Amino acid sequence: MLEPEQLSLNIPDTTKPRVIIIGGGFGGINLAKKLPNKDFQVVMFDRQNYHGFWPLLYQVATAGLEPDSIAEPLRKMFGSDKYPDFHFRLVKVNGVDPVTRVVATVIGDISYDYLVIATGTKPNYFGNDQIKKFSFPLKQVPEALNLRSQILQCFEQANMTKDAEMRQALMNFVIVGAGPTGVELAGSLAEMRRHVLPTDYPGLDFGQMNIILVEGMDRVLPPMSAEASEKTYKYLKELDVDMRLGTLVSSYDGDVATLKDGEQIKTNTLIWAAGVAGALIDGLPETSVERGRILVNEYNQVLGFDNVFAIGDIAFMKTPEFPKGHPGVAQPAIQQGKLLGKNLPRLLHGEPLAPFKYKDKGSLAIIGRNRAVADLPGNLHFGGFLAWVVWLFVHVMALVGFRNKLVVLSNWAYRFFTYENGTRLIIRPFVRSGDRVRRRFIDKYEAD
Amino acid sequence: MLEPEQLSLNIPDTTKPRVIIIGGGFGGINLAKKLPNKDFQVVMFDRQNYHGFWPLLYQVATAGLEPDSIAEPLRKMFGSDKYPDFHFRLVKVNGVDPVTRVVATVIGDISYDYLVIATGTKPNYFGNDQIKKFSFPLKQVPEALNLRSQILQCFEQANMTKDAEMRQALMNFVIVGAGPTGVELAGSLAEMRRHVLPTDYPGLDFGQMNIILVEGMDRVLPPMSAEASEKTYKYLKELDVDMRLGTLVSSYDGDVATLKDGEQIKTNTLIWAAGVAGALIDGLPETSVERGRILVNEYNQVLGFDNVFAIGDIAFMKTPEFPKGHPGVAQPAIQQGKLLGKNLPRLLHGEPLAPFKYKDKGSLAIIGRNRAVADLPGNLHFGGFLAWVVWLFVHVMALVGFRNKLVVLSNWAYRFFTYENGTRLIIRPFVRSGDRVRRRFIDKYEAD
Repeated sequence: MLEPEQLSLNIPDTTKPRVIIIGGGFGGINLAKKLPNKDFQVVMFDRQNYHGFWPLLYQVATAGLEPDSIAEPLRKMFGSDKYPDFHFRLVKVNGVDPVTRVVATVIGDISYDYLVIATGTKPNYFGNDQIKKFSFPLKQVPEALNLRSQILQCFEQANMTKDAEMRQALMNFVIVGAGPTGVELAGSLAEMRRHVLPTDYPGLDFGQMNIILVEGMDRVLPPMSAEASEKTYKYLKELDVDMRLGTLVSSYDGDVATLKDGEQIKTNTLIWAAGVAGALIDGLPETSVERGRILVNEYNQVLGFDNVFAIGDIAFMKTPEFPKGHPGVAQPAIQQGKLLGKNLPRLLHGEPLAPFKYKDKGSLAIIGRNRAVADLPGNLHFGGFLAWVVWLFVHVMALVGFRNKLVVLSNWAYRFFTYENGTRLIIRPFVRSGDRVRRRFIDKYEAD
Repeated sequence: MLEPEQLSLNIPDTTKPRVIIIGGGFGGINLAKKLPNKDFQVVMFDRQNYHGFWPLLYQVATAGLEPDSIAEPLRKMFGSDKYPDFHFRLVKVNGVDPVTRVVATVIGDISYDYLVIATGTKPNYFGNDQIKKFSFPLKQVPEALNLRSQILQCFEQANMTKDAEMRQALMNFVIVGAGPTGVELAGSLAEMRRHVLPTDYPGLDFGQMNIILVEGMDRVLPPMSAEASEKTYKYLKELDVDMRLGTLVSSYDGDVATLKDGEQIKTNTLIWAAGVAGALIDGLPETSVERGRILVNEYNQVLGFDNVFAIGDIAFMKTPEFPKGHPGVAQPAIQQGKLLGKNLPRLLHGEPLAPFKYKDKGSLAIIGRNRAVADLPGNLHFGGFLAWVVWLFVHVMALVGFRNKLVVLSNWAYRFFTYENGTRLIIRPFVRSGDRVRRRFIDKYEAD
């Protein structure tokens, strides 16, 4: 591989206005799909070469799906004749200069006519570097694979220690944050505890395996309705998930998690799903940023610049209905991306822009087999089998690409009938680099 | 994770004779499936928690399949009631002592009544440490994923350099060794060059992409018949693979591969499929080892010990028909594993053992769409569409598990109709640790 100094962006010169989109998430791809290439040159930067369907990432972590099922290569998505002037570059953006209209990357700078920041979020450790070092985040594909290896290795090791206390620490799983990721992960682990793990590890007593879900608010799934929270709480109880509401994990050193009230839980695995912060980019004035997100008007324009936009999770659009901004889920990003795809041509042609109006399509969460909750528009709340069927249908249909739909459906059908999570592979016995003790052990497995 | 000192093997004590199987490859699993658990306690050690169907590994490298499709968790395979006294441990074996009848692992020693060495092979670099450091092997799942990332990153970078010479080096792929792995990989890359890559990278000229297959013998696929070699040569020519027969790569420094005749090829990617050596285990007397493999008699007994066996690629059974040992493919390992599964009970009960007789089921290799070659017993050689259909059928049927069959079939059907390799994801922009230059660049992509 070449050094950054040996590379350049190689974006063709053009007489068309150039739109640079930073990020290939839900916002970025829906914008790029709408932008007419006859009017614009479209440039997309991302540090991954794929678009991830993150709502299903937890299933990669719990050995239910492989990464290819939930990820679609960006070049495949925009490789057709419909996008003759689309240019993807796998590169890290260092910063932007909205005055000179330049984006700086690790391999060079490039000017833009329109800039769209669609960088999403990153885990928020609230300044706790120790937790950052020792916990497992679940935001990216490699992180999900790390977590999968970690979970399976814990049982391999629990099966090989005679020390009861150490075994217990290996079989305690602490999940911090009872939002959709935390809840769905807890439910998925609980189902594995019932159906898969006892057969895989007959030497272990799975009555000892604890799934501890810690949430700072007084209910699970705080973004959803009270009805959904109650049902979810009941489902998780049925699945023997140990819920600790209204408390926090104040420290974790890789061995012991300490809660706010002083309780200590020995665990080798602490999963951090407690919060996210905007993945900000250097160069915007401080006045454009509030609570780690970029302030935008109803057209997603960044305050102070009429040719700089932010969409999706990174955007903070204050409205009377959403004074704290829109929910950090896929729909606002998708809808803002699509709208901006129509507004940029209008801006180019001097036509009036359409303001963003969030259309709430409802929320869904799955806790386990036949157990899901739904909040639909019109104050419609339901759970159980019906919500579970709706969840399955919506998620399969939302996947990008026929192949992904087919493979995910095959995997789910197989799992439904066999109660098996198919992909229990410890592909990379790597763990977080901060944790040297772990690595040292792992090194002994490595091939010569 | 715990330190090795904190772990122990925890194999239950038993009054039954204990069989220790080192390795969960074709030999190991077929043996373990046959061994009656009422007569034996069966212990299996492996450094991976899955059995890999290695004949399809090259498709993981070329973005056609995901690892879960070709790998089956060993605990899943032996988790049923049929194997109540089967014990898998994910652990590295340090050595064996056939006199005291003990296997030493990184976490402790264990005695055996019968020992079966089924460790297979590892890449053979013929003592060239530089090639070992800079080349890409293709023997394990993580290696296939590394190679996939490398191939895709080469095009990402080729698309971002203005230096013609550097671009050429990124688009040159040198494959050393024209055995089944080398040939199938070359064919698969050539098909990607035709159907997938030009759409993904419209800015690159794929007339510049070279696939160079280097083979020391004077023909491709030397283990197969002359007819198969000829057909394969013709198919690879049609696919514009540049074959260099009767020559060797004598050095590779990460930038330039030098052939025996002095020719130099600039390349960032050299794939080493040139040879394998037995994955030997310390502790056997030197007299038991020849050409890196373990000498066994017709019952797979290691010379000098009646309770130590070697099966599969690691075993060297000299017979009049196979003076150099059996071919290093799946069938001898499978057949020896099955036979030993019948012979061990016979040995236990003092009955005469059955000698091994290799039943050649033929050989197949696939070069591309509608292009394959077959050597079947009875001197039957054919190629083309018919061989291709036979190849597909045999490989789907040979996969372990219904789920794998279903997912692989879905992927192949999708690929057949769309000409798309579905999984073009750069999951881990890691490359071989020896190569610091590569890592340094990659580090700039990594998340904060």
